[in-house]
Amino acid sequence: MRTLRVELGERSYPIYIGPGILGRGDLYAPHLAGEQALLVTNETVEPLYEDTVRDALFGYALHDVVLPDGERYKNLDTCRLVFDALLEHRCDRSVTVITLGGGVVGDIGGFCAASYQRGVALIQVPTTLLAQVDSSVGGKTGVNHPLGKNMIGAFHQPRAVIADTDVLATLPERELKAGIAEVVKYGLIRDPALFTWLEENAGALLGRDSAALTHAIAESCRNKAEVVAADELEGGVRALLNLGHTFGHAVETHTGYESWLHGEAVAAGMCMAARMSAEMGWLGAADVERAEALLRRFGLPTAPPRIPPERFMELMSVDKKARGGRLRLVLLRAIGEAVVTADFDDEALRRTLAAY
Amino acid sequence: MRTLRVELGERSYPIYIGPGILGRGDLYAPHLAGEQALLVTNETVEPLYEDTVRDALFGYALHDVVLPDGERYKNLDTCRLVFDALLEHRCDRSVTVITLGGGVVGDIGGFCAASYQRGVALIQVPTTLLAQVDSSVGGKTGVNHPLGKNMIGAFHQPRAVIADTDVLATLPERELKAGIAEVVKYGLIRDPALFTWLEENAGALLGRDSAALTHAIAESCRNKAEVVAADELEGGVRALLNLGHTFGHAVETHTGYESWLHGEAVAAGMCMAARMSAEMGWLGAADVERAEALLRRFGLPTAPPRIPPERFMELMSVDKKARGGRLRLVLLRAIGEAVVTADFDDEALRRTLAAY
Repeated sequence: MRTLRVELGERSYPIYIGPGILGRGDLYAPHLAGEQALLVTNETVEPLYEDTVRDALFGYALHDVVLPDGERYKNLDTCRLVFDALLEHRCDRSVTVITLGGGVVGDIGGFCAASYQRGVALIQVPTTLLAQVDSSVGGKTGVNHPLGKNMIGAFHQPRAVIADTDVLATLPERELKAGIAEVVKYGLIRDPALFTWLEENAGALLGRDSAALTHAIAESCRNKAEVVAADELEGGVRALLNLGHTFGHAVETHTGYESWLHGEAVAAGMCMAARMSAEMGWLGAADVERAEALLRRFGLPTAPPRIPPERFMELMSVDKKARGGRLRLVLLRAIGEAVVTADFDDEALRRTLAAY
Repeated sequence: MRTLRVELGERSYPIYIGPGILGRGDLYAPHLAGEQALLVTNETVEPLYEDTVRDALFGYALHDVVLPDGERYKNLDTCRLVFDALLEHRCDRSVTVITLGGGVVGDIGGFCAASYQRGVALIQVPTTLLAQVDSSVGGKTGVNHPLGKNMIGAFHQPRAVIADTDVLATLPERELKAGIAEVVKYGLIRDPALFTWLEENAGALLGRDSAALTHAIAESCRNKAEVVAADELEGGVRALLNLGHTFGHAVETHTGYESWLHGEAVAAGMCMAARMSAEMGWLGAADVERAEALLRRFGLPTAPPRIPPERFMELMSVDKKARGGRLRLVLLRAIGEAVVTADFDDEALRRTLAAY
């Protein structure tokens, strides 16, 4: 097991990564606020892993709420199910919310933990690669609105993250690949060594080799933890983590959050960001090709679906990264070096959108 | 105009109190995050005061959302109206939410500001005495759940509070009195001089004398600001502000948040707390009578409606002040001195409930 730490002063917390740790009660116990806990999970994960977590929490008053599975349920209505469960079980402020599932479960459960009685303890137990390398770490929680993704939410740090690599054995192939997209992202924005490692170890990762998975997750979490520690509330450098996300969110909103997985949309979005960086003369054609080749190697899309450029612009304009009417984009200066900028060439953006 | 300051480091902010300040653009301008603002108000306040605020914000892109009036609308459904307005007007992270109304408008608008894109700027413009002396200051925001009051919310400090005493001219008599209940509360928990001042100036306050109102609001805000500065997230001393609230919330939940005004429920709750303090031998009968007499002088209830004691206990048990299964109550050691305790005599509580 590897243990990393997100350094946020009083709100610092550990990330545990390794095989077979889902059922280790000693990893949960120090982070539980009281005797009561609510397990938030979904209908897919519950039959697979809830019993293991239950055993780990023997002796606690553990209730559960089982949500429907899918990004389309990441909304305020589903939050109601969690709030109803918390109230029906008379949970007080000392309750700990434990999310067991992928990014959607973590985002919903996390937001409910942030909002219930103005904030209760949270432990994230991510069961998808995407959630393990990204969404469970860093405190971003929230739900979608019909007019935009993640528009309603809160910053609420967990007390611990428990990432068991064994649970990835049951993850559908397509979701594994979607998770790898975020690992590639850390390589692109700030870790050229990780990018090279991915080029050299793509086969082992796709084969779910335990050591390869642990390395990919730990290096991703290390990168994310460093960025979050430097800029918890996304005043600056944290926005780098949104590489591919402004383009990607537009794809997800256009397609109704359902036909494209988040990681797939991010993969296409990163390719769009790379191409636009090349249009602006910041990145060479060879590096664009290198990024696309790696994503292709993982079976990920390297282009968005057909969306008229005007419509694409409109979808991007509601993105959170827009400020004072001016869109901010994450672009690449090199493989392993990204910048956040509102000072981009509009023509380069238009040409990029028109190229697909 | 009097200006107070809530000292919270980077999140410190001013409270402006005085007649005719609603339309002063110079009080808003330094606290607006960008060019866009969303005014959240309700159908009662909008025709009276929205135009004045609009004039003050001439030159900004000011949108509005007009909510139905009443505590029963303080729920997640009404939050949707605010989120819809924010998204429909394409508000980005630089938007400022301005709440113009009483506690319900402030609590809903504040929670939406806390949650929209994980937190945007907020200016509170309270138009009821209750909101001016209590709910607009201190950063507590939130909505009700059918099973409990203020169960869903966030701590989100405003950037400024603008309390115009002139707007109280249109406040219904009953709401004025309900607001005075919270002023009495500050006297009871930590300010014997304010309590005595209220005994001596009850007539002037009920007559809406401008100087008396300004004094009552400023002294209340000063007390609240000191408590909040000492304990922003209610880890300790801030809980003193809940005097009468655990009993009062039970009354409000039982009666469906509608027939009793919040301040009325708090008035009855404070009398119950005083009586229970006497049952425990902490407070003399003369002081109980003094508290009840002052509240009666303001036309406020000094007893709850008929609720069976077992039901009352049940309603109290979901209260936020319960921790780890043990209820915490705010009780009185003297007029002007309160304590928060879980270490109370259950029999004294039972006798208190049975006495009504």
